Amino acid sequence: MMWAMAPAFTIGLDYGTNSVRAVVVDCLDGATLGTSVFDYPSGDRGVTLDARDPHLARQNPADWVEGLRVAIPGALVEAAAHGGERGFQPDRVIGIGVDTTGSTPLPVDAAGRALALDPAWRDDPASHAWLWKDHTGAEEAEAITRTAAEHAPEYLAPIGGTYSSEWFWSKIWRCLKVAPHVFDAAESWVELADWVPAVLAGVDDHRRIRRCVCAAGHKAMYSRAWGGLPSYDFLARLDPRLAELRPRLYDDAWPADRPAGHLSPEWAEVLGLGRGVPIAMGGFDAHYGAVGAGVEAGTLVKIIGTSTCDIAIAPGSEAMRDVPGICGIVDGSVMPGAWGIEAGQSAVGDLLRWWVEGVCEGGDALHGELSDGARRLRPGESGLLALDWNNGNRTVLVDPRLTGLIVGQTLHTTRADVYRALIEATAFGARVIVERLVEYGVPVERVVCCGGVPARNDLFLRIYADVLGRPMLLAGSPQTPALGAAIAAAVTAGAEVGGYSTFQEAQGHMTSLRDESFTPDPKARAVYDELYGMYRALHDAFGRAPGGNADFGSLMKRLLALRARVSGEGQA
Amino acid sequence: MMWAMAPAFTIGLDYGTNSVRAVVVDCLDGATLGTSVFDYPSGDRGVTLDARDPHLARQNPADWVEGLRVAIPGALVEAAAHGGERGFQPDRVIGIGVDTTGSTPLPVDAAGRALALDPAWRDDPASHAWLWKDHTGAEEAEAITRTAAEHAPEYLAPIGGTYSSEWFWSKIWRCLKVAPHVFDAAESWVELADWVPAVLAGVDDHRRIRRCVCAAGHKAMYSRAWGGLPSYDFLARLDPRLAELRPRLYDDAWPADRPAGHLSPEWAEVLGLGRGVPIAMGGFDAHYGAVGAGVEAGTLVKIIGTSTCDIAIAPGSEAMRDVPGICGIVDGSVMPGAWGIEAGQSAVGDLLRWWVEGVCEGGDALHGELSDGARRLRPGESGLLALDWNNGNRTVLVDPRLTGLIVGQTLHTTRADVYRALIEATAFGARVIVERLVEYGVPVERVVCCGGVPARNDLFLRIYADVLGRPMLLAGSPQTPALGAAIAAAVTAGAEVGGYSTFQEAQGHMTSLRDESFTPDPKARAVYDELYGMYRALHDAFGRAPGGNADFGSLMKRLLALRARVSGEGQA
Repeated sequence: MMWAMAPAFTIGLDYGTNSVRAVVVDCLDGATLGTSVFDYPSGDRGVTLDARDPHLARQNPADWVEGLRVAIPGALVEAAAHGGERGFQPDRVIGIGVDTTGSTPLPVDAAGRALALDPAWRDDPASHAWLWKDHTGAEEAEAITRTAAEHAPEYLAPIGGTYSSEWFWSKIWRCLKVAPHVFDAAESWVELADWVPAVLAGVDDHRRIRRCVCAAGHKAMYSRAWGGLPSYDFLARLDPRLAELRPRLYDDAWPADRPAGHLSPEWAEVLGLGRGVPIAMGGFDAHYGAVGAGVEAGTLVKIIGTSTCDIAIAPGSEAMRDVPGICGIVDGSVMPGAWGIEAGQSAVGDLLRWWVEGVCEGGDALHGELSDGARRLRPGESGLLALDWNNGNRTVLVDPRLTGLIVGQTLHTTRADVYRALIEATAFGARVIVERLVEYGVPVERVVCCGGVPARNDLFLRIYADVLGRPMLLAGSPQTPALGAAIAAAVTAGAEVGGYSTFQEAQGHMTSLRDESFTPDPKARAVYDELYGMYRALHDAFGRAPGGNADFGSLMKRLLALRARVSGEGQA
Repeated sequence: MMWAMAPAFTIGLDYGTNSVRAVVVDCLDGATLGTSVFDYPSGDRGVTLDARDPHLARQNPADWVEGLRVAIPGALVEAAAHGGERGFQPDRVIGIGVDTTGSTPLPVDAAGRALALDPAWRDDPASHAWLWKDHTGAEEAEAITRTAAEHAPEYLAPIGGTYSSEWFWSKIWRCLKVAPHVFDAAESWVELADWVPAVLAGVDDHRRIRRCVCAAGHKAMYSRAWGGLPSYDFLARLDPRLAELRPRLYDDAWPADRPAGHLSPEWAEVLGLGRGVPIAMGGFDAHYGAVGAGVEAGTLVKIIGTSTCDIAIAPGSEAMRDVPGICGIVDGSVMPGAWGIEAGQSAVGDLLRWWVEGVCEGGDALHGELSDGARRLRPGESGLLALDWNNGNRTVLVDPRLTGLIVGQTLHTTRADVYRALIEATAFGARVIVERLVEYGVPVERVVCCGGVPARNDLFLRIYADVLGRPMLLAGSPQTPALGAAIAAAVTAGAEVGGYSTFQEAQGHMTSLRDESFTPDPKARAVYDELYGMYRALHDAFGRAPGGNADFGSLMKRLLALRARVSGEGQA
């Protein structure tokens, strides 16, 4: 490998829900030399909301462009300041990788320019990007699922059997219905993950925007098995105007080791980088995060943030068995040559944030205080059991129209009790996913965590280890999505300038694990096994169609008895 | 009636959960001339708690005695200052009435003195009074119910089919088990409602303490139909030592229009009142509160405070039909000559206090703020549905081992949403009771409310009117229990010195209604009918034995659809 002699660096850009982060990474060992974060200025921490409709969440593309201008130079300046002994120079940046939230499609004009960048559209939220957590297309998602089940069941198999309101077609169709002026003005729709690389590459024709297989396969029902996107006939069944959009979308989707383009002269100038630096295919934060965390067969990567994404891979070329309720199983979506498997939970950090900030009206200090209070409780001691569905359920029920539930409150229930119960609820939700994967032959022997929540809160990992019954490890990088994007950039550039030739090779050099890990405690695990049984009863009764009800009559008593047992009977 | 010429006044004493109140009332028209409140100094606002056991709630009898010394003179001083034109003089006080919480039994020695007044016992909570809301005797209550169902079903019929952990025998038996030293030291056990009149009358032999039919019939399974308290044999089935206690309790219970005794010289001296003033039989706050609110056939009186008591009467001498789940149907318990019917909810004001003070950690200002926020929501708009069981369910499930449940939370749910949902939950719980009464032939045409909560919060009455579909009226007195006790004193004294000869006659002069009332809004009522259906589904599934489960699978969707409908679909 030539880089040992000639230092080489890549930039990873991570477009999150509230901010974009740029990192400058040493291709030799994955070390981060510079980091810069740009908080989106629009809306509520970057998200346009509507008080009348809690399901609406949009994002202003102008924030993303501004983020490029601010975050990349910021990271380069820091790398220059600290990376001298590693031979860092801006002209040693050999590639740029991008990861983003998704499905976050936005309407564009014929040049591929975001409609919302035009002042005429700026104040219309329908012209903005439809952020991953926008659930306004719930009806459309249901209709897509219904229509596919009847006319094209093959479309549903790799996406877990249910098309989500969070995804590409639900959003576009919803836009068509409620904001037809935006739909009509849009020449095409592009995922954020594809749009940013195209901007950097100076693409000025929407037809030349390269679409990644990751977004296409997981969110847009794209597969080579049926020739790309869903057929004209299928879309026409939904709405003829949707079918008319199809030829203005795309026919091919690209794997992660091919370049999306090369840095345009204009952006090279703005950023102080070399012209023509290869830009990797964009990908979802979860996928590149898994790459950056060292995903491999038997290792589930859990990216725990506002929501959670679970990523596993199943190497091999034979077709994967369908896994009901698992939102995506796509060939080559995480890395070339393996089946990428994606699951997720719609609210994890967001659930705690709702409790601490939305209900208790506190801030970071209260997060810490409630963590401390929750840490003092033993499993089962709160007497509470919650469902983690305040933002719907992404896996395995795939139903955004589910809501939260908490049961077991007494007049003595504290905010810390609830805080712990909410963490436990997310752990139970995580267990449902793991059990489903294992049931269908995807081994999960250990879990590597990344994302903001576990890094801040060891209680999370303790509870997860006990609930999942598996060791919980921590990714070495605090920014695995950005690192994964930087790895993709290194692999993409490697093909052009020499270097790593596979993701696995790059991961071997550029990823690591932290020293600490959490292993299950048998006693806590037994309590959680019991609670999990109750969680499943609620989960199945409240999350499923009529007919699945269990015995609720004794549930509260069992909770009380359990609490009494673990607390020791207190009586004068 | 002679009082128009010779002014006459009575004192009503109201022993609540956190304080005792004394009022001086004009027998002519029920006007309150003086009031004084004494906050109990012990424990947490008068309640001894145990952090290890949320079911424990005890009370220090010393607080009650001190309350007599402070509150009565305080009320007399105020009456003297303001009652001159009505001819008030302390020597015109012709009677004293007492109402209290219950079932609140305490262990006493042979002289009828509270054990806890002895310094040797003072720090042992088991020797204190076992406050109405102490639920430590849940197991004992279940065993009593089970044993009675098998061997003496007649005991269960008038108490709704289930013996409660809040009641006399559950508590005494629990004490026997967990604090046998206290049980052994107790010569007898006395209800607070009987103990205070005995103290005032200077009774120094526990056998001369007159026990009221109200506490005996509603809480101790006393009935003339089977010769008083449960039989020796029945009690021996529970525990032989309990049976040995029986002869040291009582054989007769007294109706409300006979005197409990007459003021002792010592207390007359301390209080500045005439010796030998008649003291009415004590009664529960809810019963005397209903009297003070003007309870009559067709009028349900709802006393809404920390918990809620519903009182109705069914005049007539023919035996009442049993009403399943209604905790008490006792001949003469509310007033002589009518069946007193008692139901209740275990937490109402306490439920809101838990939310505002326990979880949101606010005070009175936050109560007001959340009321304002909740008032701005339309029925159904919160998207939430709660069960009001944080302190168990008293009617119609009669199960203290039930807990709270709230369902429907999103990431946008606010503390005001929850506040409103909790009020609605208590209204739905109230509706279950009203429907059960009506189903069994006790008409409920209107509801008269009293207690602290409705006086402070019109939102409560608005919601209750819409949920119950009946006009909600307000008692004229802000202190109906104390007024009812003063009415009982007037009737008791009437027999001795001339005056009112019946409760009805005294009520006609001494009670009133406030001008404002709340009538159901048809639109709101329709929404609440729909929510109530869901409440009943949760209520029946979570509150009943296996087999009663309903369709939960669609419940959240129906809640969301309902919210969307009442809020108007918000979409750009």
